[in-house]
Amino acid sequence: MKFLAYFVLVCFFTVPLVEGRVRHYKWEVKYEFKSPDCYKKLAITINGRTPGPSIIAQKGDTIIVELKNSLLTENVAIHWHGIRQVGTPWFDGTEGVTQCPILPGNTFVYKFIVDRPGTYLYHAHYGMQREAGLYGSIRVSLPDGESEPFWYDYDRSIILTDWYHNSTYEQAAGLSSKSFVWVGEPQSILIQGKGRFDCSTPGIRAGLCNATNPECTPYALTVIPQKTYRLRIGSLTALSALSFEIEGHNMTVVEADGHYVEPFVVKNLFIYSGETYSVLVTANQDPSRNYWASAKIVSRPSNTTNGLAIFNYYPNHPRRNPPTFPPLRPHWNDTEPRLAQSIAMKSHKGYIHPPPQTSDRVIVMLNTQNRINGNVRWSVNNISYNLPHTPYLIALKHNLTHAFDPSPPPDGYNFANYDIYSVPKNVNATTRTGIYRLKFNTTVDIILQNANKMDPNNSETHPWHLHGHDFWVVGYGKGKFDKTKDPKNYNLVNPIMKNTVAVHPYGWTALRFLANNPGVWAFHCHIEFHFFMGMGVVFEEGIEKLGSLPTSIMGCGDTKGFHRP
Amino acid sequence: MKFLAYFVLVCFFTVPLVEGRVRHYKWEVKYEFKSPDCYKKLAITINGRTPGPSIIAQKGDTIIVELKNSLLTENVAIHWHGIRQVGTPWFDGTEGVTQCPILPGNTFVYKFIVDRPGTYLYHAHYGMQREAGLYGSIRVSLPDGESEPFWYDYDRSIILTDWYHNSTYEQAAGLSSKSFVWVGEPQSILIQGKGRFDCSTPGIRAGLCNATNPECTPYALTVIPQKTYRLRIGSLTALSALSFEIEGHNMTVVEADGHYVEPFVVKNLFIYSGETYSVLVTANQDPSRNYWASAKIVSRPSNTTNGLAIFNYYPNHPRRNPPTFPPLRPHWNDTEPRLAQSIAMKSHKGYIHPPPQTSDRVIVMLNTQNRINGNVRWSVNNISYNLPHTPYLIALKHNLTHAFDPSPPPDGYNFANYDIYSVPKNVNATTRTGIYRLKFNTTVDIILQNANKMDPNNSETHPWHLHGHDFWVVGYGKGKFDKTKDPKNYNLVNPIMKNTVAVHPYGWTALRFLANNPGVWAFHCHIEFHFFMGMGVVFEEGIEKLGSLPTSIMGCGDTKGFHRP
Repeated sequence: MKFLAYFVLVCFFTVPLVEGRVRHYKWEVKYEFKSPDCYKKLAITINGRTPGPSIIAQKGDTIIVELKNSLLTENVAIHWHGIRQVGTPWFDGTEGVTQCPILPGNTFVYKFIVDRPGTYLYHAHYGMQREAGLYGSIRVSLPDGESEPFWYDYDRSIILTDWYHNSTYEQAAGLSSKSFVWVGEPQSILIQGKGRFDCSTPGIRAGLCNATNPECTPYALTVIPQKTYRLRIGSLTALSALSFEIEGHNMTVVEADGHYVEPFVVKNLFIYSGETYSVLVTANQDPSRNYWASAKIVSRPSNTTNGLAIFNYYPNHPRRNPPTFPPLRPHWNDTEPRLAQSIAMKSHKGYIHPPPQTSDRVIVMLNTQNRINGNVRWSVNNISYNLPHTPYLIALKHNLTHAFDPSPPPDGYNFANYDIYSVPKNVNATTRTGIYRLKFNTTVDIILQNANKMDPNNSETHPWHLHGHDFWVVGYGKGKFDKTKDPKNYNLVNPIMKNTVAVHPYGWTALRFLANNPGVWAFHCHIEFHFFMGMGVVFEEGIEKLGSLPTSIMGCGDTKGFHRP
Repeated sequence: MKFLAYFVLVCFFTVPLVEGRVRHYKWEVKYEFKSPDCYKKLAITINGRTPGPSIIAQKGDTIIVELKNSLLTENVAIHWHGIRQVGTPWFDGTEGVTQCPILPGNTFVYKFIVDRPGTYLYHAHYGMQREAGLYGSIRVSLPDGESEPFWYDYDRSIILTDWYHNSTYEQAAGLSSKSFVWVGEPQSILIQGKGRFDCSTPGIRAGLCNATNPECTPYALTVIPQKTYRLRIGSLTALSALSFEIEGHNMTVVEADGHYVEPFVVKNLFIYSGETYSVLVTANQDPSRNYWASAKIVSRPSNTTNGLAIFNYYPNHPRRNPPTFPPLRPHWNDTEPRLAQSIAMKSHKGYIHPPPQTSDRVIVMLNTQNRINGNVRWSVNNISYNLPHTPYLIALKHNLTHAFDPSPPPDGYNFANYDIYSVPKNVNATTRTGIYRLKFNTTVDIILQNANKMDPNNSETHPWHLHGHDFWVVGYGKGKFDKTKDPKNYNLVNPIMKNTVAVHPYGWTALRFLANNPGVWAFHCHIEFHFFMGMGVVFEEGIEKLGSLPTSIMGCGDTKGFHRP
């Protein structure tokens, strides 16, 4: 009976509420001790919670978030991941690109329209605060009377993250020191903010780890037998590529980053940081038991325990462990099925947005690991990025010409002579702050070209996220991109649109997008540490079409006095 | 020979350099891993060092510090402790009182005159950054041709601190949580940034503590036999009251907070956070060995190991341990000698600044521990302080009337009915942001009245620090201050002037100062955690006499757009 009550409560809170067209949130950000994986550490919370409150809205709604920064000495900024911010590029929440950070004690008001249904995320976009716990989910439903091209009984959201016991300060100091201390593998994988670290691990300081803390009770997804669930899965890992699986259940992929996918069935879903998917799962297995839901690290040889949740068949107890061992597949090093899933992702046939058949500009971006002044960095075409402290958007609108390097980064690299399978011959790169200026309303192709790292036989997966746009994923390939041959095989018929896409080890990924959203937009590897180490670029387009900027985004760097009450 | 070279080097760098009248420093603040007590943790450094670089200047010099904030997401501000900032109240460096914090990536220029010779300090004055390692010493020498009323061969500076292995964020989150997690006793006492934590302590995470790390080699003060040393000792502990002692050597106290003391001899010097003293020590003991210098926690029952340094008689090896056990005296709980030292501190007879014989206003400040909305706090007259995010100085000059509570805090408490020896009958207090407005050029008396904490039989020592002024210490007493009788016993003949003074357990301390420095000035307990928990007030005087404020201090709270390039 208690569980039924619990269940009804869950339904009540997760069914979209249809109320006004303006959804107003008041959030307070601060540090609190949390034990999401039984190990107590500081987390950045919103209204006392991590993950933060979900934003549940309907297409066309206006979201207002009054964000109060109650951190002691730290600023903050929040990005609305997947929301294109058409007409409101200043509320994209990207410190250094679209806004100044929000000072302790200050309240900043984000106001934007969610103009497309789908599954989105929000998270801090300043320093490495995202992985300190400052994130949550955004779910935008269809307008009344419209329906998706698939059917389900219930709708659930799950965010996957990885979790470190060191603070982001410690990690940042290690990553930016000459001696380079890598962050290592995460201590836990969290499913909807819950994980489980082994408190008997040697070397844990007494009192910090408590296996019986209710905060680390595994997340239970309670299902009614024979019902079909839309599971909206987002990944905001700091580092890890994941394989998500529900023991004994197939999943039908139906949505990716807010776009309908031509449905296909998987046993396990590969998901990279910054991506969202909707899968349909029917509770059609033996209802007398529970099942494991697991999230396993792939693409890196990690010894981190798989993240586990309980796929709980009502009326079984949600904390009753399944009688089986959790799934252990797939092997971390098996790239083929990951590439296959990427390629399988096509636009739903009833919802194809045809891409332009040609592009106006092609930018090839070689992804490399480098060394600059003795520090390990990541680069694009040998340039490693450091965000300036005067946001580009303001610098460009106000002609603050000294705020960043006026010369643009290159559209390619020394293509003919670069061996992507070897350690770079010359590991040196440079730090610059120049940006790509895109002609408004043109079509731009980006070729993400992967390569070997600074250690032999190692090429990593990088999930690249574009702010302010969705792009068409027009092609994937192995090895070095061939600019003559490969474009002939682009899928220009039914490519999926996304905002985040992986470039696989030693491979390339080709994207096409329309530079039609006036503003300044970051495009970066969504691995927190890689972006921190320089793996990103910035695009500008149509900035002349924007009216005056809200002064609330100003007040740092060269814009220190620009704020008007 | 190597040691002689070392010694010469030390002399070269510590003898005041007489160069121009402007001393220009460029400092970069960032996080780095340091092992000051053999345990590796993040520290805030200046140009890679903690303690930061010493400021060595001559009376009348202009100090310019260009402070670049290279922290990732944190702001910063630095206070010049003991420098009165006559004419430059905006460069006092107190976040929330005199300036907005300095944002990451920004450079702020402090410019002020050191108008009195003496021993001073600098340290962060934002959040609890001071105890993360952001501090250093200021030494101001006499003008050419003038000399002190005492003689010495060499001049040395030492800062004493206590050191915690938890981060300030963890401490702050614990202190401000409803469940109230006290910071506990420090892990180490550092002498000039060097301490020694026992790496064999159970529960230390592997790899964090390394007893052979050269960073935790004890500080060695190398002395030449028969020479006399002026030892400038400052305390910037977060919490601890200390007793400093050099085994087998007497110390003659000659300076306190920049004022000459009528010399007196001590075996051990009691020193509270925020105080500075000069003592003369002659190396007149057996020169064939070294001696311990030790700093012991008093006033709290602490199990922290004493801080140890080596008083190294040249040419003995500076790392050769003395053959004796370090001093263990005095007992932590023995209040009498601490009070006796306080009372013994008089102005040097040749340098008496006579205090006004009467005062215009008496403010009695009852120091209590309280509870507000379930949180543990410290209060003055039942008001616990929270710094607003619009600095008072700017709010007052620019009539930003909503920036803080316009009603002033009370000049006293319910005197007749308060039992200072008992747990408070009513532990509730309130949080307010109102300030004391002092009539310009008036004489103000402050009576700091100590009391019992919220637990029985416990009254702590609080060192109170006044910004922008020195005050005369006109009296100390035990028990409850009697406003009729006690003022008759004030020392109005030769009271010492100081900027920091202790109020002893269950006692009172009476101060007198001239409100003659136009500006807004904090007055607070110098224990980092107590100030964080509300133990402070703010004074304003003569603000109408100030010209326009530099806009570089603006840009936060209600002054967000006030900065002008």
